[in-house]
Amino acid sequence: MRTPERSLEITQVKEWKDGVVRLCEDILAAEEPLEIRVGKLPLTVTMRTPGNDLELAAGFLLTEGIIESADQIAELRFKPPETGAKSNVVEVELKDTDFSCRDLQRNFFAASSCGICGKASIEAIRQRGLRQLDRGFRIDPEILCRLPDILLSEQAVFSRTGGLHAAALFDGEGHLVAVREDIGRHNAVDKIVGWALLEEKMPLGRHLLLTSGRGGFEIAQKALAAGIPILASISAPSSLAVKLARELGLTLIGFLRGRRFVVYAGEFRCLPEASMNKD
Amino acid sequence: MRTPERSLEITQVKEWKDGVVRLCEDILAAEEPLEIRVGKLPLTVTMRTPGNDLELAAGFLLTEGIIESADQIAELRFKPPETGAKSNVVEVELKDTDFSCRDLQRNFFAASSCGICGKASIEAIRQRGLRQLDRGFRIDPEILCRLPDILLSEQAVFSRTGGLHAAALFDGEGHLVAVREDIGRHNAVDKIVGWALLEEKMPLGRHLLLTSGRGGFEIAQKALAAGIPILASISAPSSLAVKLARELGLTLIGFLRGRRFVVYAGEFRCLPEASMNKD
Repeated sequence: MRTPERSLEITQVKEWKDGVVRLCEDILAAEEPLEIRVGKLPLTVTMRTPGNDLELAAGFLLTEGIIESADQIAELRFKPPETGAKSNVVEVELKDTDFSCRDLQRNFFAASSCGICGKASIEAIRQRGLRQLDRGFRIDPEILCRLPDILLSEQAVFSRTGGLHAAALFDGEGHLVAVREDIGRHNAVDKIVGWALLEEKMPLGRHLLLTSGRGGFEIAQKALAAGIPILASISAPSSLAVKLARELGLTLIGFLRGRRFVVYAGEFRCLPEASMNKD
Repeated sequence: MRTPERSLEITQVKEWKDGVVRLCEDILAAEEPLEIRVGKLPLTVTMRTPGNDLELAAGFLLTEGIIESADQIAELRFKPPETGAKSNVVEVELKDTDFSCRDLQRNFFAASSCGICGKASIEAIRQRGLRQLDRGFRIDPEILCRLPDILLSEQAVFSRTGGLHAAALFDGEGHLVAVREDIGRHNAVDKIVGWALLEEKMPLGRHLLLTSGRGGFEIAQKALAAGIPILASISAPSSLAVKLARELGLTLIGFLRGRRFVVYAGEFRCLPEASMNKD
């Protein structure tokens, strides 16, 4: 399901080390633009790592609130390239032909009566009418601590180039369900969600999403849109991601490293009940 | 010039460590949307860390090719907020009133005859008529190796939260000229460039830009737009950043850690002459 050959590029570089210069080979994370079109309208251009592009487009449509299920997609295809062998344009046909790019802008950041602010951004997400997150889904802290090592062992490209973000989907027993890498962390998440959408694995209410990078508003919003109740990261979340998670009931975990993690929201899904009201 | 109080937020969290749960305080990197308007037209919304917002807006206009100098800005101000104390909208008045949002789209990714691809993205940057990068500017490898420690010592917020990207401008002797932090690495770069623009420090032909994060196409493009001849990063660049740097004569350095770095493009500015044709 991965296309590693397009996600890497080898190039010659010079290394300076302690005053000594040598010519060597370096493996780069591939980056190229991808345009997503709905009908014939250009919707967005994202700089992404080639591979799993149809998943990326499908996931983007779902996590940005343009569609709610795979049923709404009539067709999803590469636009045949005019020259060369690779296509960097994905065309989507929706069953609802009334879609316009204005809908997307509305979804991104609704102009609200109180102006643009973090609160309005959260309100815009809430107003999409997201599905309720599964309140019964839990993960054991001991299982949680093992997930970063599983992700790392799957991250072939990342470990070689240091240039890719990874996102991985796990079930409640800590089994890896899917992993995707991309130069953009939001793209890695969209590829995961798009995979689930196209493979008819939705909803993802009994799953956990683990990301290698920092967890900002955008990533939390995408997890919510996909109905994923637990979002964990090896790094730190942002203030707005924490607010969004607390308001909409998402479990948000940061600094998941070794035998330690920090819970920012929704602790009932990952902490032992005895510790719940402890302070 | 920094407003650290708005760039941090303190919150209560729970830490799980080796089976023991405790309540503690955590410092978060602040994230809020900022809308940049030109005239009354919304140009972009970026999720950023509050602080240095006017710099961010000015820098964005320059690095995205909308303006070439500070002279073109007639006014740069916060839109007074309707409620509350903080404004998240910056309004820009340009002297050239013919500007339309279509110009921006054209600047982002020009529709080219060969379709959308990395080559077309590079061509779109080239067609902006960027200023020639200074070919006489050099940096000594020994000086270069000291820069990450200088950046780190300035990164007060980053070191506390692990959640912010940093960008720093240095002169050829390794003196720190400016440093900015943001949840978005492109914003940190725009804040640096906007600072230079508003402080009349342009052009930046005798400066080096150091970033804490990965160096993708977008960051390389912004360095080029600002006329900065050397871009260095502690992490890895992407394939398209390397191609862009090689085509447009930017010196691109990655993995700048300890007494080692890798040169991806423009080695004449940072390697000893004796090693130049070595292979």
